[in-house]
Amino acid sequence: MSAKNLTLLTDLYELTMMQGYFETQADETVVFDAYFRENPERSGYSIMAGLEQVIEYIKKLNFSYEDVEYLRSLGIFKEEFLHYLSGFHFSGDIYAIPEGTVVFPKEPLVKVVAPIMEAQLVETAILNIINHQCLIATKTSRIVSAAQGDGIMEFGLRRAQGPDAGLYGARAAMIAGCVGTSNVLAGKMFDVPVKGTHAHSWIMSFKDEYTAFKTYADLYPSACILLVDTYDTLKSGIPNAIRVFTEMREAGIDLTFYGIRLDSGDLAYLSKKARKMLDAAGFPDAVISASNDLDEYLIHDLKMQGAAINSWGVGTNLITSKGCPSFGGVYKLAAISNDNGEFIPRIKISENTEKITNPGNKTIYRIYDKETGKMRGDLICFVGEEYDIEKDLTLFDPVDTWKKTRLKGGTYTMREILLPVFQNGSCVYDSPSVMEIAAYCTKEKETLWDETKRLFNPHKVYVDLSKKLYNVKQELLSQMSDDEDQ
Amino acid sequence: MSAKNLTLLTDLYELTMMQGYFETQADETVVFDAYFRENPERSGYSIMAGLEQVIEYIKKLNFSYEDVEYLRSLGIFKEEFLHYLSGFHFSGDIYAIPEGTVVFPKEPLVKVVAPIMEAQLVETAILNIINHQCLIATKTSRIVSAAQGDGIMEFGLRRAQGPDAGLYGARAAMIAGCVGTSNVLAGKMFDVPVKGTHAHSWIMSFKDEYTAFKTYADLYPSACILLVDTYDTLKSGIPNAIRVFTEMREAGIDLTFYGIRLDSGDLAYLSKKARKMLDAAGFPDAVISASNDLDEYLIHDLKMQGAAINSWGVGTNLITSKGCPSFGGVYKLAAISNDNGEFIPRIKISENTEKITNPGNKTIYRIYDKETGKMRGDLICFVGEEYDIEKDLTLFDPVDTWKKTRLKGGTYTMREILLPVFQNGSCVYDSPSVMEIAAYCTKEKETLWDETKRLFNPHKVYVDLSKKLYNVKQELLSQMSDDEDQ
Repeated sequence: MSAKNLTLLTDLYELTMMQGYFETQADETVVFDAYFRENPERSGYSIMAGLEQVIEYIKKLNFSYEDVEYLRSLGIFKEEFLHYLSGFHFSGDIYAIPEGTVVFPKEPLVKVVAPIMEAQLVETAILNIINHQCLIATKTSRIVSAAQGDGIMEFGLRRAQGPDAGLYGARAAMIAGCVGTSNVLAGKMFDVPVKGTHAHSWIMSFKDEYTAFKTYADLYPSACILLVDTYDTLKSGIPNAIRVFTEMREAGIDLTFYGIRLDSGDLAYLSKKARKMLDAAGFPDAVISASNDLDEYLIHDLKMQGAAINSWGVGTNLITSKGCPSFGGVYKLAAISNDNGEFIPRIKISENTEKITNPGNKTIYRIYDKETGKMRGDLICFVGEEYDIEKDLTLFDPVDTWKKTRLKGGTYTMREILLPVFQNGSCVYDSPSVMEIAAYCTKEKETLWDETKRLFNPHKVYVDLSKKLYNVKQELLSQMSDDEDQ
Repeated sequence: MSAKNLTLLTDLYELTMMQGYFETQADETVVFDAYFRENPERSGYSIMAGLEQVIEYIKKLNFSYEDVEYLRSLGIFKEEFLHYLSGFHFSGDIYAIPEGTVVFPKEPLVKVVAPIMEAQLVETAILNIINHQCLIATKTSRIVSAAQGDGIMEFGLRRAQGPDAGLYGARAAMIAGCVGTSNVLAGKMFDVPVKGTHAHSWIMSFKDEYTAFKTYADLYPSACILLVDTYDTLKSGIPNAIRVFTEMREAGIDLTFYGIRLDSGDLAYLSKKARKMLDAAGFPDAVISASNDLDEYLIHDLKMQGAAINSWGVGTNLITSKGCPSFGGVYKLAAISNDNGEFIPRIKISENTEKITNPGNKTIYRIYDKETGKMRGDLICFVGEEYDIEKDLTLFDPVDTWKKTRLKGGTYTMREILLPVFQNGSCVYDSPSVMEIAAYCTKEKETLWDETKRLFNPHKVYVDLSKKLYNVKQELLSQMSDDEDQ
């Protein structure tokens, strides 16, 4: 749908600022962090996704002749600058947290270290891609957890916010643990399983429900899920399905994957009734799948009420992340290099403490309990700070600094989670396949305590600042406040 | 971002059903209606958008060699069917309500009259496109109304659900009355105004705020909106802006479009303070623009409180339609042709009365008061029903049938709003430009009473069924219910 060339997928102000830097010959190397301020829907964690599309975007950055002509037509750009754009390519470094990783607020998901003109241009598209896919991956992860091991199918394409939202939303959903998507193009593009059977219109186009079921079963005997709610679920749909399954068995057909789908009515009540009817007819292994406005809360509740559903199709609420349809990622200047190539930390203050940035050229270490492999917390520090895991480590809350956690040397492990993706404009990172990322994501979630994965009021994972970073931040804040007093 | 070829942008079940129809040689001509059940966020109306992209999609429908190879690899499609797909093109008729038209629940926005295999295939993409653009156009229209004539700028790209959501969301926003978008690619693709100045990072990259402002003003003297909240809005931002404006004036620069942008803090308080400071300094025509998590409700409230803002940048809440991120459009079978080529109405019942479909091959007439030009209501009827506007017309509520409105002959006018778009597979409709659609949309909204445009608890516009359609519907419902009793 959208143009292949996304170079102009940016806010106009990125270009007006770029021209400003061009004109003033201000092109210091800077550090920008893309991070988010809070988990969507009070989740205890989020899931990183979208990096592969960021990489594609950066690789293809190139102002075409038509792009430059268009910008010229706006009458605000000078010829020298347009000439510069026509030869533009990204020459900087990018670091990112790999897709499928569990992530937390305030952590740089993507860090751009580049001449300010380049770093500014890529802001909008990076945020667009990361905000979208992290949002859908996080929502999906919660839905998958609520289903306690049942399969979740992504069925949202028709309600997605445009074609890309359907496609990349399906990609993010697969990363976060869906077993399949209805989206055929997503299946083709990302090599992920596609699923689906039939709609009410199939049933309505035949003279009766039985004939519709029978025809479908003849065509697709090895994946025969019949939609039973077109007329009357209990009086017509399920009895007709049982009749067809019985005929299939009598005809010697191997009933491996078969069952029913409920798409309306009370899913707890109907699924329990359906289970009894199917069991009584000798079909205890028939799948009962359900769809209809599901989300993590409803699935959680249906499970609590003993709904006999073992496969869930989730559409609208997953693909739009209804309840919280934006991730809120921001892209903030963190440092500017001086003449010696050293990064001088910058801070953006705000009346709202939550909006104050973390200054400097930073990285992130994830800390695990050596014995259980469970996550203890994350540590944001300056690039180059060194730690010895044989020594004790004291973590402290960056807001409530009296809250300290002391980790005894030898009892914990650390790994850096912000990895190089581009260096001097060249890509140095190979994206895994979507299903590889999904497998990694499952392992990542296993490092979280159940308390953090809880839907409601989850336990917060600590994301602490290194002592050095904390001190630099306080110093900058205090300078700012002194300036204000003058 | 997404592939140009959207033929596989469909749910797998559309293809499994298609193969079913192919195998059973069931390819009657059918009528499908794409419609929605309720206005988002209890709005009194919605805005139609997305038709041009539906047309592009239908025109380009074509299973490439790779598409067929991919489908073959799934192992569920037979060679005869794959061969059929490789020669597939759309051969049917499509009718639609033009973009920018005010629309209401239950009205077919798009009607597909085609062989069932073709009509089934296009369901998902049509819904995806229409659901998205109608949603954003409707949200935007409400925001534009709340601003009471002030300009609304669309600033949401970074928070949109992927690149297409940013692009086509901007398109829908322009249709519904935005004065510009920050999205440069949308500006290029849809020939709409692009807007934007600078971000906090611009200010932070200079040694001080004054220098940042001054540099910007030197570069862009004719569109100089300065962002004043990087450090301290009242103590630093506005005084520095005034200093720069004063210097511009002293230098003889013609201050035509200039002013400030507020992006944090209490916008009512700060804008009123800013207005006083700017006025006192001799800049009564300086624009005060505002951004930061705005939506129709907050703009409405800020206006009520006398905020001195005359230009609004709206991002996240517009581009995601936060509060209601899906439009909920559905695509339902309404009729199947018999051997004589007559359309036999079909109905889908549901325990939920709201979900019962309107049967048959239908069209829609919009009825206006002849004197005021205001809308009286819409009438859904069968294709071919004729009306004489010189005769009295009785409209009745399809649910509460005792609620009747009698229109005296000669006092009203009617126009059919569902227009032919494709006939026998050929496009017969020329899409207007986005700005033409936007002008039409403004006129459309003028036909609504203010009571219908109210944000809260708006007056409902009547969408009635013709007597004939109502009777057929009741007959089908009664047949269904008889069948159930047997």
